[in-house]
Amino acid sequence: MSEAVLMEKIVSLCKRRGFVYPASEIYGGIGNTYDYGPLGVELLRRVKDAWWSAMVREREDVVGLDSAIIQNPKTWVTSGHVGGFSDPMVDCKKCKARFRADKLEDARCPEKPSKKPGQCEGELTEPRAFNLMFETNVGAVKDSSSIAYLRPETAQGIFLNFKNVLESSRLRPPFGIAQIGKSFRNEITPGNFVFRTREFEQAEMEFFVPPGTEHEWFDYWVKERHRWYLDLGIRPERLRIRAHDKDELAHYSNFTSDIEYEYPFGWGELEGVASRTDFDLKRHSEASGVDLVFFDPQTKEHFTPFVIEPAGGVNRIALTLLIDAYDEQKLEDDVRVVLHLHPRVAPITAGILPLVKKEGMPERAKEIGKALRKAGLTTFYDEKAAIGRRYRRMDEVGTPYCITVDGQTLEDNTVTVRLRDSMAQERVAVAGLVAHLEACTAAWTRDAATA
Amino acid sequence: MSEAVLMEKIVSLCKRRGFVYPASEIYGGIGNTYDYGPLGVELLRRVKDAWWSAMVREREDVVGLDSAIIQNPKTWVTSGHVGGFSDPMVDCKKCKARFRADKLEDARCPEKPSKKPGQCEGELTEPRAFNLMFETNVGAVKDSSSIAYLRPETAQGIFLNFKNVLESSRLRPPFGIAQIGKSFRNEITPGNFVFRTREFEQAEMEFFVPPGTEHEWFDYWVKERHRWYLDLGIRPERLRIRAHDKDELAHYSNFTSDIEYEYPFGWGELEGVASRTDFDLKRHSEASGVDLVFFDPQTKEHFTPFVIEPAGGVNRIALTLLIDAYDEQKLEDDVRVVLHLHPRVAPITAGILPLVKKEGMPERAKEIGKALRKAGLTTFYDEKAAIGRRYRRMDEVGTPYCITVDGQTLEDNTVTVRLRDSMAQERVAVAGLVAHLEACTAAWTRDAATA
Repeated sequence: MSEAVLMEKIVSLCKRRGFVYPASEIYGGIGNTYDYGPLGVELLRRVKDAWWSAMVREREDVVGLDSAIIQNPKTWVTSGHVGGFSDPMVDCKKCKARFRADKLEDARCPEKPSKKPGQCEGELTEPRAFNLMFETNVGAVKDSSSIAYLRPETAQGIFLNFKNVLESSRLRPPFGIAQIGKSFRNEITPGNFVFRTREFEQAEMEFFVPPGTEHEWFDYWVKERHRWYLDLGIRPERLRIRAHDKDELAHYSNFTSDIEYEYPFGWGELEGVASRTDFDLKRHSEASGVDLVFFDPQTKEHFTPFVIEPAGGVNRIALTLLIDAYDEQKLEDDVRVVLHLHPRVAPITAGILPLVKKEGMPERAKEIGKALRKAGLTTFYDEKAAIGRRYRRMDEVGTPYCITVDGQTLEDNTVTVRLRDSMAQERVAVAGLVAHLEACTAAWTRDAATA
Repeated sequence: MSEAVLMEKIVSLCKRRGFVYPASEIYGGIGNTYDYGPLGVELLRRVKDAWWSAMVREREDVVGLDSAIIQNPKTWVTSGHVGGFSDPMVDCKKCKARFRADKLEDARCPEKPSKKPGQCEGELTEPRAFNLMFETNVGAVKDSSSIAYLRPETAQGIFLNFKNVLESSRLRPPFGIAQIGKSFRNEITPGNFVFRTREFEQAEMEFFVPPGTEHEWFDYWVKERHRWYLDLGIRPERLRIRAHDKDELAHYSNFTSDIEYEYPFGWGELEGVASRTDFDLKRHSEASGVDLVFFDPQTKEHFTPFVIEPAGGVNRIALTLLIDAYDEQKLEDDVRVVLHLHPRVAPITAGILPLVKKEGMPERAKEIGKALRKAGLTTFYDEKAAIGRRYRRMDEVGTPYCITVDGQTLEDNTVTVRLRDSMAQERVAVAGLVAHLEACTAAWTRDAATA
């Protein structure tokens, strides 16, 4: 299967089964913007919950934060985004189309798609900086004094609150502040489905460390984040760690490594781990006049912490999980599409299927489904079509377990549990069902999935 | 305690302990905008999880959605927001201050605070409509063709996807689509702490019903949502249901009831349950040319569903929980501040406290804390100051359980569990600790709390 075909199949599956829809579709859409349907929103929630558990709740040295999207605009002057967060753009003087000056090789003239910009009849302007922040106005008056920006990263909200968090918690470096939330970048060329969109959800953590320890913490976090992706079942051979060249580094970073994934469209950044030095805290301290230094009451030392930042994108993680999980398996008499999603992130944990639509099986199945939902599992009830077709429908959306209620259920209160990956079935007592599924999830590994 | 004093105390507690900070504080803030600190973000997460469980995961007839904040601007023309989502504003010709024309009674001249606007020397302009949507521009060109809006409600994202959800799920009316997400309103007079802010998180559900059944479903959802607040432990005597007068109704609604709470600043809307009729689906269908009618394959009927919408605000719910939980209790030798938060929403589930900072107690306490976190509980380790003071610190942030590790722990592997509300202590085996705390949470009631 070619890469383009694979992406097409995933986009089509996402739309058809309710993972991802084009946004504002009934009005012709709006650029490369997407909405997440019933299954997509559950996938996103599970990605966020898994991240929050690993990065905040299971740790003693990291706390959470949820800062506003619209901050005082001085924030973005100080951070360097007002002055420097821009792409160089050129316009075609003839057709008025706009292109990224550094990506002209990949661009095409909209009027003559066989030509590159500038090679058609249109002449290109000199490159100009185009700021990627979305602008708006806050308050009753619309003028330059009321300009504000939608945040292009959640990180600055963390730096702004460094002192507040220090004062209300009892943390001391090394410690981290983590945040999940929407950011906005007015990208000229978003693309590759939800890989790059103008509106996206970040999962970022700023880890504040004593100066001189940044290299060891950087190594720690690169390993830790790589392991997190492996724990979610992503194929190790499709992951790699790549250090940035000097000329790729952001203005605030002295070294950065990306955890990259091999997408159908090539290797791409899945997560960046950046050493941000003391750049942001020092700049904000100078600009605001507020002391953002850490004072250690034991050693009587003052220092500005250095920062290691692991930064991922929730939507991109979800896309990566879908791509990585997608499989077409040739069976004896059939080809099945199956998503080998880790049970922790699968949108539906258990399909609830009465074998036939009579003899009290639907009623019993619904009772069992209700009990599972009360225990916190997500279920989907399906009584339509032959049982084999219903299994396939669950395979296609990555549901790891199918619970089938049959004649025997009504006699001895057992059900069959069918596993998505091996398609093996076993009989399990209803009383022990939740514990059984939890044990299966705890034991799940990618090898078992593809074996 | 006066109402103003109570609000001041809550605002101060929120800042000091890390629930809520003023946003961009180091730059002098930005209007009435707030960030949520380590405890605040956990409170918000628990509110959202409780809402999502009750409204989506535990139900068979509701699915979730997560739509983009920036949709095609035609969305807001059709919904009536471009034309009608405005406040009437007047300007003072002398000092240029701007006021809501319909709230002049409560306003004060900024230069002469003893006077109302217009009663000082300044003359007021005629009222003009001021649209409450934040405007921005999408794409490379900044002109009228690229104007877009930050959504003022999550509801429209649901209506836009009505057909997509119908096609990818197997739902038929009555069914609901639920969404949690940020909305933005450029309010001229936000206020009362996080009660009304320009950026806020909504929890909305659109429930689509066959025409003619809207009254019974409206009654159902008003009861259901009222019960949800009671289940979270909110005092029943501070809740009431109030039907809107005809002249209060939004343009899309034929009847609406608010679930109101008695705030320190008076009765106010906690949640609105609106009958939105078939207004939105019909308007979007006409404007887009896309058929948004439900076809019932069994009865061969076509109809546009009517909509019942329960809509709450996550930040406002969190504020309400804090206000409702706040208590100053006179003890024999002390006054303690305690938040009687329901254990399901308390930011920290268990304080982990070694009785003394020696004899291996800190190490054992940390092990126990780690095991509880692995089981999904949120813990806070504290070894500083006398045990009584540490209990008070946990009371003040609403931590329902304190686990104390003492000499006996090292001998027989039991700990004391101290309950926040009754301050009762009991000895519990470490092996059964998680189950014990879960049982306490399941049995928690407001009566037990304040008894």
